[in-house]
Amino acid sequence: MFSRSTESKPASALQTSRWFNAAEDLTLDDFRGRVVALIAFQMLCPGCVTRSIPVAQRLAQLFEERAFAVLGLHTVFEHHNVMTPAALEVFLAEYRIRFPVGVDMPDPTGAGTPLTMQAYRMRGTPTLVLIDAEGRQRAQHFGAHDELLLGAEIGALLAEQDGTTLSGPEQESHDDSTGCIEDHCEAPVVDESVS
Amino acid sequence: MFSRSTESKPASALQTSRWFNAAEDLTLDDFRGRVVALIAFQMLCPGCVTRSIPVAQRLAQLFEERAFAVLGLHTVFEHHNVMTPAALEVFLAEYRIRFPVGVDMPDPTGAGTPLTMQAYRMRGTPTLVLIDAEGRQRAQHFGAHDELLLGAEIGALLAEQDGTTLSGPEQESHDDSTGCIEDHCEAPVVDESVS
Amino acid sequence: MFSRSTESKPASALQTSRWFNAAEDLTLDDFRGRVVALIAFQMLCPGCVTRSIPVAQRLAQLFEERAFAVLGLHTVFEHHNVMTPAALEVFLAEYRIRFPVGVDMPDPTGAGTPLTMQAYRMRGTPTLVLIDAEGRQRAQHFGAHDELLLGAEIGALLAEQDGTTLSGPEQESHDDSTGCIEDHCEAPVVDESVS
Amino acid sequence: MFSRSTESKPASALQTSRWFNAAEDLTLDDFRGRVVALIAFQMLCPGCVTRSIPVAQRLAQLFEERAFAVLGLHTVFEHHNVMTPAALEVFLAEYRIRFPVGVDMPDPTGAGTPLTMQAYRMRGTPTLVLIDAEGRQRAQHFGAHDELLLGAEIGALLAEQDGTTLSGPEQESHDDSTGCIEDHCEAPVVDESVS
Repeated sequence: MFSRSTESKPASALQTSRWFNAAEDLTLDDFRGRVVALIAFQMLCPGCVTRSIPVAQRLAQLFEERAFAVLGLHTVFEHHNVMTPAALEVFLAEYRIRFPVGVDMPDPTGAGTPLTMQAYRMRGTPTLVLIDAEGRQRAQHFGAHDELLLGAEIGALLAEQDGTTLSGPEQESHDDSTGCIEDHCEAPVVDESVS
Repeated sequence: MFSRSTESKPASALQTSRWFNAAEDLTLDDFRGRVVALIAFQMLCPGCVTRSIPVAQRLAQLFEERAFAVLGLHTVFEHHNVMTPAALEVFLAEYRIRFPVGVDMPDPTGAGTPLTMQAYRMRGTPTLVLIDAEGRQRAQHFGAHDELLLGAEIGALLAEQDGTTLSGPEQESHDDSTGCIEDHCEAPVVDESVS
Repeated sequence: MFSRSTESKPASALQTSRWFNAAEDLTLDDFRGRVVALIAFQMLCPGCVTRSIPVAQRLAQLFEERAFAVLGLHTVFEHHNVMTPAALEVFLAEYRIRFPVGVDMPDPTGAGTPLTMQAYRMRGTPTLVLIDAEGRQRAQHFGAHDELLLGAEIGALLAEQDGTTLSGPEQESHDDSTGCIEDHCEAPVVDESVS
Repeated sequence: MFSRSTESKPASALQTSRWFNAAEDLTLDDFRGRVVALIAFQMLCPGCVTRSIPVAQRLAQLFEERAFAVLGLHTVFEHHNVMTPAALEVFLAEYRIRFPVGVDMPDPTGAGTPLTMQAYRMRGTPTLVLIDAEGRQRAQHFGAHDELLLGAEIGALLAEQDGTTLSGPEQESHDDSTGCIEDHCEAPVVDESVS
């Protein structure tokens, strides 16, 4: 997965017929300077709904303060008559999806696969594309995500972008219980003079 | 979590009484040039056993080809009479833990908290410490991990270390089924002349 | 949840406009002699899709050799224009749902809530109704299921129906590995003469 | 799994060296009139700790108002020197296990497998034994549990015992939100005059 990025190329333009959760139509240029996770999905694709969309929602929340954005792309390649923009709008509302979602442009020649999906040569849904702050496509994954790996890819791109990595030693605040609770055991306070 | 790393300091030395899964005693200097995830745990801490150790095991496997290492540290601060090195050895075998695990050195003054745990001012277990390839401590987290966030932290350190980030566009190979299966929907093959 | 069943009443008739996964239209009378788990859902209800439908699918499989049946009921009370029978048909195919699913009859007066949903006074989706072998409604639950509790309810009804409970001592067959693997530790074989 | 119970036999007596979470030593006779789920485990068996113990804890809580009890049995057949009663006591405290747990009696001949484990011819840990209210052994399962199936077995035994099955129609109370939340979608209130 990780190798020197000598072969990256500009990410293909998004060809969309409309957008949801956006004030106006969006292009990748609007996100120059930000790392973009582009998630291609279909609203009736089980793996998209149960696995991929929840990860996309958590990404949008976890990195909302970074130079980062999650974009959805509804790449319908089957059952076009029921996965319409009107149905997608209900889906987005019911699943409380807040990030922008574009509708991939239908192929005017009548091919079932829409235009952006064709340009990226996606194999199906879900497909996750990572685009760096300079608009270059850096990764493309088909199928379910491993969260540790996906996090590592995004962390690398974020570090590359803003020169920001990790602060020095820190202590996260937790509740003040002592003993073992659900996810940890609290130690008795160490006498400062000892350490 | 992410901020400019102007304040990082050398990671404190590991003070250990013995090691498991290692041919000889280890020090952090042995891992110079590699990013280290140091996981402090107790073998009878539920959050360590059910949440943290499994993540550590996956990290060790996922990044085994990178300049990266997972080290365990058995930081017993309570119930010392039953969480002995002999018991730890059985625990490591039963849970099939393969990465090196050191036993944190008991405090000679009789304080329950062992010496490395004191030096890092850990609040309890599990605690995860990230150390960069130059031996500087870059993060310390108490309690359960968010995999996306932890992955991002490690990805940033790995990128910083070896200048390696992400390759260009790729297509992961999956099984050849078409239609929707558990985690994805396969699209019909797009005619190359179209795309 | 458990109390003496002195108040049970005949389950209300299913009022449906059409059926999927069935050769012909079904009624509850068709299932007399069998315990029925009736699962009311909407195809774009997240809790139904991610939690309730998977449990219904496992129930159908686990108890397929018992006097038991799972029936789905598509009780659309909102967004009728996109949760159409045509869309439901795609949903059932994509999610590989095999048990019969009826479409709850729209209210002719124009109320959004369909007729069977009204008759059962369901609060929303998912709702699970348990009907005994004599056609009496025995339980109705709104929201997510606890699998142990739901299993206990169904087990009680199955026992009541066919006089069948549990066999005597048995040993399930597992793989022949020894030692500890993912979900168990195998003991060395006990010398028969000892036990 | 379910078949007519013509072959059940009295459950073998528990042979124990001591008990935890009990005021005095316990026998199966103490639980006559109650359905018993006997869970045999080892404190360093991963499958026991991560899968079986949590189910046992939930069973104890879910059915605490029924004629039902969960009993633990620490059946150490390996690594006896570290899975001692003293270590078990710490384990029970750290994992907050409240149900009674007996220590299976070591074999005086020096065989590693303890006496109750031998009497039940258990293959390893975890093993779950179901005993009915008349003290007959009704089921024995080795390995991980399917919650729906285990619930069904227990529900059948509970129904058999106290003649209690399920009440008539009920409506569980949930929060008053409308629309779709995490696990359900709330319908608008149906006008009573309509239904």
